[in-house]
Amino acid sequence: MAYIDLGVDEKNFPGITGPMRYRPETAKPLNELAEVLLRAPNSLPAAERELIAAYVSGLNECHFCCSSHSAFAVAQYAAADVADGTSIVARVRADLDSAPVPAKTKALLRIAGAVQQSGRAVTPELIAAARDEGATDIELHDTVLIAAAFCMYNRYVDGLGTFAPEAAEEYAPMAQRIVEQGYGI
Amino acid sequence: MAYIDLGVDEKNFPGITGPMRYRPETAKPLNELAEVLLRAPNSLPAAERELIAAYVSGLNECHFCCSSHSAFAVAQYAAADVADGTSIVARVRADLDSAPVPAKTKALLRIAGAVQQSGRAVTPELIAAARDEGATDIELHDTVLIAAAFCMYNRYVDGLGTFAPEAAEEYAPMAQRIVEQGYGI
Repeated sequence: MAYIDLGVDEKNFPGITGPMRYRPETAKPLNELAEVLLRAPNSLPAAERELIAAYVSGLNECHFCCSSHSAFAVAQYAAADVADGTSIVARVRADLDSAPVPAKTKALLRIAGAVQQSGRAVTPELIAAARDEGATDIELHDTVLIAAAFCMYNRYVDGLGTFAPEAAEEYAPMAQRIVEQGYGI
Repeated sequence: MAYIDLGVDEKNFPGITGPMRYRPETAKPLNELAEVLLRAPNSLPAAERELIAAYVSGLNECHFCCSSHSAFAVAQYAAADVADGTSIVARVRADLDSAPVPAKTKALLRIAGAVQQSGRAVTPELIAAARDEGATDIELHDTVLIAAAFCMYNRYVDGLGTFAPEAAEEYAPMAQRIVEQGYGI
């Protein structure tokens, strides 16, 4: 049970969806931000942006956000990108250095990991390393903001003590809905 | 100089205002969220909501956000609320326990301080303590989301290495603009 009465059956409205039903005035910009950052046309593929979201959510130990955005990333990676039956997302989360993602993606994920600690943990060296791998200004901007935004979403979800389904497969229907319809704006 | 070319003179567009000019697509929901959380009609006075924003920004050591939202809070407190010439905000930041704010505000600030560490640091006891002082569900919700949102804004501002004016008085014109016009939506 969440810390406040969200006015919904939490089994049907897990994680962030409960507080979003409870407070539509804040849900609107929160969804719009997710849509622009994670789904709008971008030189970074949607799967990669969801990977950044899942990675940061994992570092913040937010089970709902990490499970859901992992599912959203996996759903948007082509089958060929999934090595040895283990999803890219799980391998990135287990060990970034050895994960099967491009060097640019790794460099962006290292920036996202720094942002998760503190904005002040991002260094000119981390930025330069990403640029060396071809990251553009807008990709750097969006990586920092995606990571920062998930430091918000994660705290929102867990700070209100919302319910999160345990098993990864319970997030699959959500993934299908996001891929087909986006973040509902 | 920020880590990316924001296309503006950073002296005129310090802190978050530079990245907001650079990327209007994300600025729109970011401003709308701030407007709903900090300025829209609410049982928590605007000054108190800005105090939560400044408090969390201070804990995150984000000089721009802490200075600007401190100024926004001070500008919205009546003169009578300012004891001994020291602003309420400065006293809260120096020592919450002895600060001249109501017990409910202190309890909400303790929740905000927990959110700054992690969503998982918010406990049923912190929520119950705020309820005992009269906090409502929506006030608890908004406190958690304001604190979470500033964990985003702070990381966005510092993660891009933006410029922040040093002196507190440089934030006064910004405060006047926010009080008169809001967060520009």
